[in-house]
Amino acid sequence: MLINKKSLHGGDIYENSVDLDFSVNINPFGMPDAVKNALTDAVSGCCAYPDPYCTALRHALSAHENVPYENIICANGAAELIYQFAYALPKGKPALVISPAFCEYESALKAADIGAEYYYLARDDGFALTDRILNVNFSDYSAVFLCSPNNPTGITVDKALLYATADSCLSAKTKLFCDFCFLDLSGQPDKYDTSRIIECCPNVFILKAFTKSYGMAGVRLGYGMCGDGGFLGRMSAKTQCWNVSSLAQAAGVAALGCDEWLLGCVDYINAERCRISSLLDELGITVYGGEANYLLLHSEIPLYEKLLSRRILVRDCSNYVGLGDGFVRIAVRSRAENDLLIDNIREIIKK
Amino acid sequence: MLINKKSLHGGDIYENSVDLDFSVNINPFGMPDAVKNALTDAVSGCCAYPDPYCTALRHALSAHENVPYENIICANGAAELIYQFAYALPKGKPALVISPAFCEYESALKAADIGAEYYYLARDDGFALTDRILNVNFSDYSAVFLCSPNNPTGITVDKALLYATADSCLSAKTKLFCDFCFLDLSGQPDKYDTSRIIECCPNVFILKAFTKSYGMAGVRLGYGMCGDGGFLGRMSAKTQCWNVSSLAQAAGVAALGCDEWLLGCVDYINAERCRISSLLDELGITVYGGEANYLLLHSEIPLYEKLLSRRILVRDCSNYVGLGDGFVRIAVRSRAENDLLIDNIREIIKK
Repeated sequence: MLINKKSLHGGDIYENSVDLDFSVNINPFGMPDAVKNALTDAVSGCCAYPDPYCTALRHALSAHENVPYENIICANGAAELIYQFAYALPKGKPALVISPAFCEYESALKAADIGAEYYYLARDDGFALTDRILNVNFSDYSAVFLCSPNNPTGITVDKALLYATADSCLSAKTKLFCDFCFLDLSGQPDKYDTSRIIECCPNVFILKAFTKSYGMAGVRLGYGMCGDGGFLGRMSAKTQCWNVSSLAQAAGVAALGCDEWLLGCVDYINAERCRISSLLDELGITVYGGEANYLLLHSEIPLYEKLLSRRILVRDCSNYVGLGDGFVRIAVRSRAENDLLIDNIREIIKK
Repeated sequence: MLINKKSLHGGDIYENSVDLDFSVNINPFGMPDAVKNALTDAVSGCCAYPDPYCTALRHALSAHENVPYENIICANGAAELIYQFAYALPKGKPALVISPAFCEYESALKAADIGAEYYYLARDDGFALTDRILNVNFSDYSAVFLCSPNNPTGITVDKALLYATADSCLSAKTKLFCDFCFLDLSGQPDKYDTSRIIECCPNVFILKAFTKSYGMAGVRLGYGMCGDGGFLGRMSAKTQCWNVSSLAQAAGVAALGCDEWLLGCVDYINAERCRISSLLDELGITVYGGEANYLLLHSEIPLYEKLLSRRILVRDCSNYVGLGDGFVRIAVRSRAENDLLIDNIREIIKK
C-alpha cells in the first residue's frame, strides 16, 4: 500500500476521472474466461493458507517455459520480484539501469540501499540498445537492469546482443536482470531461448508477469527464472513465505492453459499497433518502433494534458530518467477505442 | 514463494497427508458469506491494477478502529508488514523479541540484516509477561516485538503493563511492534484502547490481520496502525505499490461489515476453548491459560508424532525459541472435531 509515493505509474484511474485509459499496458482482451472461472472456483478454498511452494503453479510454469521447477520463483506480481532481487543483491556496488526504464527498478534499489546509475539509450538510435553497451565495465556494478521489450519504448533487444551482454556480465560476476514482462504480448514471444539462458548463464534473472498477458493486474502474479538456485533462495528469504495468494496460484495455472487465446491476442495487437503507428505518423507524431502492446510517442504538443481535458488518460513519460517533455506512452486497445484516441489527437493538432 | 525455508509454520497441509488440521489458528467458522460474495464479485474488476492507496479499505478501517486514515497501512497479509517494519528500522542496533514468538519476526529481521535478541517469557510465570520487562534497557534496541495474545501461548499482555512498556520504549526512542493479530478472536477484543495508543505513542506499531478472524488466509490481507505517519511512509517505500490485490481490498471491506458474525464466533471460541481446556487438564496434559482461538499444551508424550500417525496435524512447537520438546499448539475447531482430537489423545495416553 502506497502512502508517500506520488503517482509514478500509469493506470491511476483512482485519482483521475477518465472515460478511456490508454496509460496501462494490459492485454486489450482482458482476462480469459478460464482465468475468471478459476478465480471464482478458488474462493471457497481461501480459508486455508496458500501453498508457500506454489507447487502446482511452478510445475505448470516448468512445462510452459521448459525450465526446471527449482529454477522458478513466483511472487505477488512481478513488481515484488524486483524488490526481492534488489534486497538479495550484495551490498557495496551500485546497479546499472538501462534507461529509460520502468521506475520500480530504481524504487527497489533505493529500498535496498543500493545506488542506481544509468546507461542512457540514445534517442538518435530510436532508443535501441546497441553494441555500445559492451563497452561498459560491468564489474563496476552488482547488477544490470535490462527490459525487453523495453517499457516505455517497446523496443526489443537484439538476440545476439542480449546473449553477448549476458556473457560479459557473467565474466564480470555481475547479475543481469532481464525484464521480459511484455515479451509474451510482443510480435516475437519466442525471440530468446529462455531455457538455454537459464542453463548457460546462472547470473541472469528473467522476470515475467501474468498481469499484462492475461489481464489480471488486480490479482497480482509474477514469476522469475534463474539458473542459480542459491540466489533464488536468497530472494525467497527476503519476503514472507505466503506471498502468493491461493487465488493467484489458481489463476496462474488456468492462464497457462490459454495458449491459443494468447496467440490470437498477439496477432490482433501486432496488426493494430502497426495500423495506429501509421495513422499517428501521418499526423506528424513521432512514433518509436516498439514491438509490444503499447507505443512511445513524442510530440511538441502537450498531448497528456490536452487528452486528459478530454477525459482520455495516456501515460505521461516526462518523468522517466532519459526521456523528458513531450513523451507519452499509449496502450493498444480495441480498434474503436484506438480510433477515438486518434480522432481526438487529430482534433487537438488541428486547433 | 518459499524455496529454501523448511516448514516452519503450521498448516502445512500441502506436505502432510492429514484428515484433521489443528495446526492453523484460523476462525473455525471459516469465511463469512459476505466475504465470499465480495471476492466473487471482485473477479470481473481484476483486469485493472489495484488501488495502490487502498482508499476504500483504509476508510473502512479508519471507521472500524477509530484511527485516522493516514495512520493505517495495508499489506499482502500481516506477514508482509513484519518484513516492511524490519526493513524500515534504523540499522545498527538489534531488535528484542519477546519469546516464544511467531518465527516470522526473526526471519524478517534476518532479511533486513538486523540482529535478533530474545527476552524469554518464563514457564514458571505461565509464559505471562511480567513487570520484569520494565527492567530492560530499551535504548539498547531499535525495536521490541510483543505479541498479544501471544502466538503460540495464547496469553494476553496485561493492559497497564502494555502501556508501561510502550511508554518506556517511547522514552528510549525504541519502536514497539505490537502484534494483535489474534486479539479480535480472543475473549477481550477491546482490551486495549487502540486509538489512544496510536495518538499517544507514535513509537508503537500495531499489527492486525484479516486472515485469522475472517478465515481468509488464502486471500492475504493484513493491516497496521501507527501514529508516526513518516514511519509508515518508510514502510510503504520498502515494497511495491500494488501489494494489496483488488480481491483482498474488496474482501476486507466486506469483512468489516461482519461485526455481528464475528461476535458470535468469539462467543463460541471462548466457551469451546474453556471446555477443551478442562478435558485436557483431566487427561493430565498441561494447558497454558491462553485467551485466543488456540491453546499451548505440554506433555511428556510425543503428541505431535502420535497424532500425525493418526492423520491429525497439530503444531509442533519444539522449534520455537524459548520452548522445547513436548510443546504443541492446537486450534479450537468445531465441537465434533475437538472431541475427536481429545478422544485420540485419550487413546494415545492409555496405550
